Amino acid sequence: MSVIISPEEVAKHNKKDDVWLIIHGKVYDLTEFLPDHPGGQKIIMKYAGKDATKAFEPIHPPDIIQRFLSPKVCMGSVDLAKLSKVVVEETEEDKKVRLARENMPRLEEMYNSFDFETVARSVLKSDAWAYYSSGSDDEITMRENHSAFHRIWFRPRVMVNVKDVDTSTTMLGSRTSLPIYVTATALGKLGHPEGEVVLTKACKSRDIIQMIPTLASCSFDEIVTAAGPDQTQWLQLYVNSNREVSEKFVRHAESRGMKGLFITADAPQLGHREKDMRQKYIQEEPDEITRNSTAVVRDQGAARAISQFIDPSLCWDDIAWFKSITKMPILIKGIQTAEDAVLAARHGCKGVVLSNHGGRQLDFAPSAIEILAEVMEALKRENLDQGFEVYIDGGIRRGSDIFKAIALGATGVGIGRPFLYAMSSYGVEGVERLMGLFQDEFEMVMRFMGVTKIADIKPDMVDIRNIKDHFVSNPTDYLSKLAYEKMQPRHNSKL
Amino acid sequence: MSVIISPEEVAKHNKKDDVWLIIHGKVYDLTEFLPDHPGGQKIIMKYAGKDATKAFEPIHPPDIIQRFLSPKVCMGSVDLAKLSKVVVEETEEDKKVRLARENMPRLEEMYNSFDFETVARSVLKSDAWAYYSSGSDDEITMRENHSAFHRIWFRPRVMVNVKDVDTSTTMLGSRTSLPIYVTATALGKLGHPEGEVVLTKACKSRDIIQMIPTLASCSFDEIVTAAGPDQTQWLQLYVNSNREVSEKFVRHAESRGMKGLFITADAPQLGHREKDMRQKYIQEEPDEITRNSTAVVRDQGAARAISQFIDPSLCWDDIAWFKSITKMPILIKGIQTAEDAVLAARHGCKGVVLSNHGGRQLDFAPSAIEILAEVMEALKRENLDQGFEVYIDGGIRRGSDIFKAIALGATGVGIGRPFLYAMSSYGVEGVERLMGLFQDEFEMVMRFMGVTKIADIKPDMVDIRNIKDHFVSNPTDYLSKLAYEKMQPRHNSKL
Amino acid sequence: MSVIISPEEVAKHNKKDDVWLIIHGKVYDLTEFLPDHPGGQKIIMKYAGKDATKAFEPIHPPDIIQRFLSPKVCMGSVDLAKLSKVVVEETEEDKKVRLARENMPRLEEMYNSFDFETVARSVLKSDAWAYYSSGSDDEITMRENHSAFHRIWFRPRVMVNVKDVDTSTTMLGSRTSLPIYVTATALGKLGHPEGEVVLTKACKSRDIIQMIPTLASCSFDEIVTAAGPDQTQWLQLYVNSNREVSEKFVRHAESRGMKGLFITADAPQLGHREKDMRQKYIQEEPDEITRNSTAVVRDQGAARAISQFIDPSLCWDDIAWFKSITKMPILIKGIQTAEDAVLAARHGCKGVVLSNHGGRQLDFAPSAIEILAEVMEALKRENLDQGFEVYIDGGIRRGSDIFKAIALGATGVGIGRPFLYAMSSYGVEGVERLMGLFQDEFEMVMRFMGVTKIADIKPDMVDIRNIKDHFVSNPTDYLSKLAYEKMQPRHNSKL
Amino acid sequence: MSVIISPEEVAKHNKKDDVWLIIHGKVYDLTEFLPDHPGGQKIIMKYAGKDATKAFEPIHPPDIIQRFLSPKVCMGSVDLAKLSKVVVEETEEDKKVRLARENMPRLEEMYNSFDFETVARSVLKSDAWAYYSSGSDDEITMRENHSAFHRIWFRPRVMVNVKDVDTSTTMLGSRTSLPIYVTATALGKLGHPEGEVVLTKACKSRDIIQMIPTLASCSFDEIVTAAGPDQTQWLQLYVNSNREVSEKFVRHAESRGMKGLFITADAPQLGHREKDMRQKYIQEEPDEITRNSTAVVRDQGAARAISQFIDPSLCWDDIAWFKSITKMPILIKGIQTAEDAVLAARHGCKGVVLSNHGGRQLDFAPSAIEILAEVMEALKRENLDQGFEVYIDGGIRRGSDIFKAIALGATGVGIGRPFLYAMSSYGVEGVERLMGLFQDEFEMVMRFMGVTKIADIKPDMVDIRNIKDHFVSNPTDYLSKLAYEKMQPRHNSKL
Repeated sequence: MSVIISPEEVAKHNKKDDVWLIIHGKVYDLTEFLPDHPGGQKIIMKYAGKDATKAFEPIHPPDIIQRFLSPKVCMGSVDLAKLSKVVVEETEEDKKVRLARENMPRLEEMYNSFDFETVARSVLKSDAWAYYSSGSDDEITMRENHSAFHRIWFRPRVMVNVKDVDTSTTMLGSRTSLPIYVTATALGKLGHPEGEVVLTKACKSRDIIQMIPTLASCSFDEIVTAAGPDQTQWLQLYVNSNREVSEKFVRHAESRGMKGLFITADAPQLGHREKDMRQKYIQEEPDEITRNSTAVVRDQGAARAISQFIDPSLCWDDIAWFKSITKMPILIKGIQTAEDAVLAARHGCKGVVLSNHGGRQLDFAPSAIEILAEVMEALKRENLDQGFEVYIDGGIRRGSDIFKAIALGATGVGIGRPFLYAMSSYGVEGVERLMGLFQDEFEMVMRFMGVTKIADIKPDMVDIRNIKDHFVSNPTDYLSKLAYEKMQPRHNSKL
Repeated sequence: MSVIISPEEVAKHNKKDDVWLIIHGKVYDLTEFLPDHPGGQKIIMKYAGKDATKAFEPIHPPDIIQRFLSPKVCMGSVDLAKLSKVVVEETEEDKKVRLARENMPRLEEMYNSFDFETVARSVLKSDAWAYYSSGSDDEITMRENHSAFHRIWFRPRVMVNVKDVDTSTTMLGSRTSLPIYVTATALGKLGHPEGEVVLTKACKSRDIIQMIPTLASCSFDEIVTAAGPDQTQWLQLYVNSNREVSEKFVRHAESRGMKGLFITADAPQLGHREKDMRQKYIQEEPDEITRNSTAVVRDQGAARAISQFIDPSLCWDDIAWFKSITKMPILIKGIQTAEDAVLAARHGCKGVVLSNHGGRQLDFAPSAIEILAEVMEALKRENLDQGFEVYIDGGIRRGSDIFKAIALGATGVGIGRPFLYAMSSYGVEGVERLMGLFQDEFEMVMRFMGVTKIADIKPDMVDIRNIKDHFVSNPTDYLSKLAYEKMQPRHNSKL
Repeated sequence: MSVIISPEEVAKHNKKDDVWLIIHGKVYDLTEFLPDHPGGQKIIMKYAGKDATKAFEPIHPPDIIQRFLSPKVCMGSVDLAKLSKVVVEETEEDKKVRLARENMPRLEEMYNSFDFETVARSVLKSDAWAYYSSGSDDEITMRENHSAFHRIWFRPRVMVNVKDVDTSTTMLGSRTSLPIYVTATALGKLGHPEGEVVLTKACKSRDIIQMIPTLASCSFDEIVTAAGPDQTQWLQLYVNSNREVSEKFVRHAESRGMKGLFITADAPQLGHREKDMRQKYIQEEPDEITRNSTAVVRDQGAARAISQFIDPSLCWDDIAWFKSITKMPILIKGIQTAEDAVLAARHGCKGVVLSNHGGRQLDFAPSAIEILAEVMEALKRENLDQGFEVYIDGGIRRGSDIFKAIALGATGVGIGRPFLYAMSSYGVEGVERLMGLFQDEFEMVMRFMGVTKIADIKPDMVDIRNIKDHFVSNPTDYLSKLAYEKMQPRHNSKL
Repeated sequence: MSVIISPEEVAKHNKKDDVWLIIHGKVYDLTEFLPDHPGGQKIIMKYAGKDATKAFEPIHPPDIIQRFLSPKVCMGSVDLAKLSKVVVEETEEDKKVRLARENMPRLEEMYNSFDFETVARSVLKSDAWAYYSSGSDDEITMRENHSAFHRIWFRPRVMVNVKDVDTSTTMLGSRTSLPIYVTATALGKLGHPEGEVVLTKACKSRDIIQMIPTLASCSFDEIVTAAGPDQTQWLQLYVNSNREVSEKFVRHAESRGMKGLFITADAPQLGHREKDMRQKYIQEEPDEITRNSTAVVRDQGAARAISQFIDPSLCWDDIAWFKSITKMPILIKGIQTAEDAVLAARHGCKGVVLSNHGGRQLDFAPSAIEILAEVMEALKRENLDQGFEVYIDGGIRRGSDIFKAIALGATGVGIGRPFLYAMSSYGVEGVERLMGLFQDEFEMVMRFMGVTKIADIKPDMVDIRNIKDHFVSNPTDYLSKLAYEKMQPRHNSKL
């Protein structure tokens, strides 16, 4: 039934009032959609009349057009035989990435999550690195997420038989090898050609739960299909302004066996991720923009290109409706105060994820670990803690971080960027090794803390007296400091 | 009626007991004024018998001679036809600035106020950069002003409908698009040939209030005239020892429609801004100063040259008199304790600006944001908070800073240096873009905090537990630190 | 009775199912032991059929095979006459070390423990440096150990006659010149060919107590024999899963005159010392490991190679048994909470060592000095402090550190790495000089504090108000910091 | 009466059991004194039989031999005519210093005390720099002394008539232009050939009190004689083990008009100033010291060479005796706790100097400013504050530091190193300028704080909530920090 269209024909439709594009062999008329494109008109016009597949793929789920646009925009299929193969010359950046990948350290040399991050920085293309690594504004919250864990110290108990240590636990009713899950992150194909299914495969072999993102590069079904029969997956949901779109997606997800619905609450708009914006700006070198323009058009990088359809009017009243369309346990992701955790419980949610979106939304939002203790207290005080599960994400980089979160009351913790970095650099094996490292580190901490199972991990095992202290040093007294001659230990100066 | 004088005639008057100068085509006899010149005698003698316009212009308002000196000092006009045009060769510094300006980044690449500051640093002449950027003594307070905001963290509320966010508010009875104003800063022409009217034009298009400085490079009337018909402007006042001069100025300002009178209280003398002093010293290379001089003559840079006529005897008793000469609401700028805020209210002022003068006066004065909460409490305790408006300035660099100030009780915030940097580098469009960025950032913070209008922003939305803590690190243990071998993540060492 | 075997014969047994090695002239059949080797199979296979003495020696006590393996594995002696002397070429690293040693600073230039550490870093082989200097994970606890002392400040008393100062004291009933002891550290021959007896000799001449490690490079008897007749030594014990092995060792130690038994409680497994692991990995360049391996095999460096036989099931119930086999006073080493110190006293121990194993086990374990005050309070509260001795180790680098520990209640302090560094670089004389420096510094602090004997050192002489505060700075605001132009004092710029 | 001795005759006495030296034209037999020389025997033997004047002069008062040795050691005068003039070649260091001095910045460019310190660092010989700039051990206390002032912030009052500000005050009954004094520092001739009289002259012209050190390079009488008729001077006293020596010195000082006697209590021995020790060690290159020496002989640098005769048995009981030999007010210098300040008052002292000896004695002693407030409270609590004067020294570098000390209760502050640096680089004029800068800064702070005379400066003008907090940062998480890509503001990258 599909019409076959020649490339020459497509090429004629290359103006703002008549614009066609080829994506995955299909021809689309995007004239009407043009002003609504979240990524801006410019990028569409760059490919007007041409094949846009390569640019489209890493930053859109394959089914996005089907999901959001009318079937009428599909004009037919391109005559592939006539589509001349473009011989793409290797760019400078491509060459840099290729050489970096050829010289990667061995996987066995990766001893911690920071190793993966550092290798990823050299082997990722700049757009992927900028998208994955950036946070909002000054990136204070993004970095605070990990460093807040450094404000927590241990109170280790010794002379306990810790020969056999069991790290397994239950999250939302599903058994798992470790109290961690792979949290939802967008645009997996920026980092790895196979996208999110890489994570799915590693989760399968290591018995770890995966939260599937709304904005995956792979389609939802691809990711579900890649999972094993008993593998637990959850769904992260950006709520669409058009509730029908969300309803359809939620019902489908439930039918495919999702064990939890995590509604993102901290993204009524996307944060300003300046590294991402700057990277994109530099890459595009927009020649037609003049200095006289006074409009504030922030070029938004990869972040903005994907976020059009998130409804800023989402509110507590919507929970009842969600409960009416699904039996999946509903959890709110992005809770940042004890008050809102209590509200979630009162609205019948099964739990919350304390999260600031990896420091990508509101800068100076507190880290999840900082507010965890007061959230648990508030729930207890209100008698809402039974059967209500609290998760946290953000900044978890060591087995000790996992232990600290569990000690303060978390059921489990979500980990995002580290798995992206492992996936981008070493694929499935990289993710598996990183999971193994977390397992190894967490088990070791349990042993050193004198506990043998998750249930034994208690709040009095951690010292959180400084957890809420945000220390900002006085400005440096440079004159005094520069006038001072530093002490130097004696070394082998003759070498 | 004006006498025409030949340049040759002017040139004869070049001695300390008989010194004439040409400024803007007029010939002035400055013999009697010479010892009183705030900028010192040396600079006047440098131009004795010559045309001093170029040196005079950026650091004096054009009407300053009329305002402060007797009409008798004007000897007539110079015969312009005979005034030989001096061919000025481009200096090394001029060339550096010219090249820097030719290679400026595009305005669209400016994503935050720090971008503007950094560009301004490369395109400003060294005297302008030194004057604008310097603070007093060790510049501790200047830097503290911004970093104090980092001691405040957010308590964001989610699941609130934030589709429509309104950032507009009312300050001293005038409506404005955003709770910020361009605060008074001196010597605009050091940074831009058109001076303060650049700011006026941007305020017009973005609906922002401007506070006009006493020590503007443009005349007061030029700035007022550049404004639109409904544009709100306020007046900043340095009180002159000669109260008649101040009275005349205040009455004139009221007649030109100023909506508020801000009396500066923190400048009984000018602070030691050492960068500014050093820059001037280096530039002038005073050959006649010998090492035997024991007098402490601090060369004061641009700062001292403009500040002669600020009365150090100004005190609370003077408020009654100001109320007798104007109906403008009177506010005290430079309040730094709750006690003085209460005194201002008791003396019938309409409000205060908590300010330490951008860190240019007393080093180790607290930041305005640090004392804001206790000021609001004191006013409330004394039942003086109704109808009394509290503003702050100093260190505001992000939309989140604006939000924090509003949350703690400020009606609005003044922003100075960032607009000077935007003006100096990109002119009106630069200032407009920066205003747009503040609008954008502030609106985003409101949305992430779960509020839709200014009135909804409350103190419990911010965590200020460490706001008054000044953390000074122990001196570094260099021996221990230098003996330690730092951890290094594994990277692509073969590249 | 010993069979003489030719090197040719040995060389035939070089496969996994038949592997012989020569060590110290003996031939061992390690086929059955191969899978149990703590250091892994690979290193054994590297020497299969060959003389492994040089690799074996620095990381194993000479009697380890006798102690842990069946006599049957010894197949006989190698025919030394036929064992061809291998001419070893000097490696790059050997050359670097040799040159560094030839150019060492004079011993007299060593003014503090950091000098020794810095020199050791240049003269040690990389495997020794990695093993001695590394801590676990991020090495936070390792560095915290010393920097915690910086949170303690003095309250010095003056106008006291301090002409005669006596630093001697009694520990576990033995008199000593100074309240310090050389704590147990493994693998002394990595740093010095003579190993731990170097420390023994220096202890003898300076009248300092030595704690002999289970995992010494020298045999226990060698170390005891090297001591003088009245020299006090203690025994550190890793408890073996096979309690018979431990019993034999303890009984023997008591018979050789050990004055105290220190049971290590903080090592149910060994920590992840990443520097050590990375060093070993880099050195070995394992060619057969492929990128496809998904197993998490952390290459454990020197640390793992020695720790096989530490029982993770050790618990409080075991104390009774130890008391049944020895009359030595029993102390638990590795206590990290007041609760466990109380338990040790309740179980009849004579004392404890507050220790986190030099930061080599659990990262974010607190430093001993941090918890010392609360441990003393808890013991007092429970009436368990009389006759119970509390020692600490970790981070002691200055005489002032010793004073602080004594003031807070310690009977004495253990010092480990600094003596290893002194031993490795300057041998016996180095250790003696460092002991002398500690003596000198400690005596000076006593004098400045206004005390003349150990018993006069009291808790109110130190200010510990911040002892439990762990300050983590807010993430740096790089944009603000980089935009700022630092103050610079005026210097001789023309030079 | 003096015997004339030929240089040839002197030259014969160059052995340990017969050693003569020429100093200032006199011949001394130092054979018996040799073992007692505080600077060690080696330096004396270096000049045995030769003229030692040049080495002797900068580190000994000229009258020291007369004061401490028997007249019998003087064998006569050398025959100057025969003493061959040694032609000294300029050393590398001398040349470096000469060039540095020829290129010094103009005095007028010195804007603060740090400028003087920085210039001094380049124009001082290394022994002088090491002696003046060094502190004890890790120099933590030395640096803390200034940085403690950074923990104090102001509470400035505005709208006060501050036209006329008076900085003069009374200290121990003497009027002075400023509440500062030049505190006692040893070895002035290391920095300036004229030594301490340089300070005397500057004190005269700026009306500042000078405290004369026991260990001056100039003789006491030279310093007193250099003063003007009404110039106030105080005496700092190191108490000699031989009380007769001290009595003679005190009685003489009183007869020469000293207005106060400051007994140093914090120096029962001299601190380990490692920079000073290392500098001396490097300079001397002691060839006969071998690596086999095990004795701990710390080479003590300039510090040790001067401190022999300080009695470590000095105690409170001695005060009564001092009161019996002098009518000068007695103050104890080096008090470091409130308890000892109370004891000083109880023993009838007129006051104390809170001091840690410029951080040159006990490292981790608190700064004077930190304990000032609690000292004042304790004195008040005990009703001992009337007529009892409390001074502080250590770390005062700005006018704001002076203000903070006065606000917290100090009568005045001592300043040492900054004046040494000014003296060493620019002589009398340098010291005068620095005094002028302090005057200027202090007056400015008073004006900005809203006070016009010393008596109006009150404790509630400063915020000391963090004064006793010693913040030690957690160890840096290098892996996390190095993996992070820092934010960068946009700059003119094309330049």
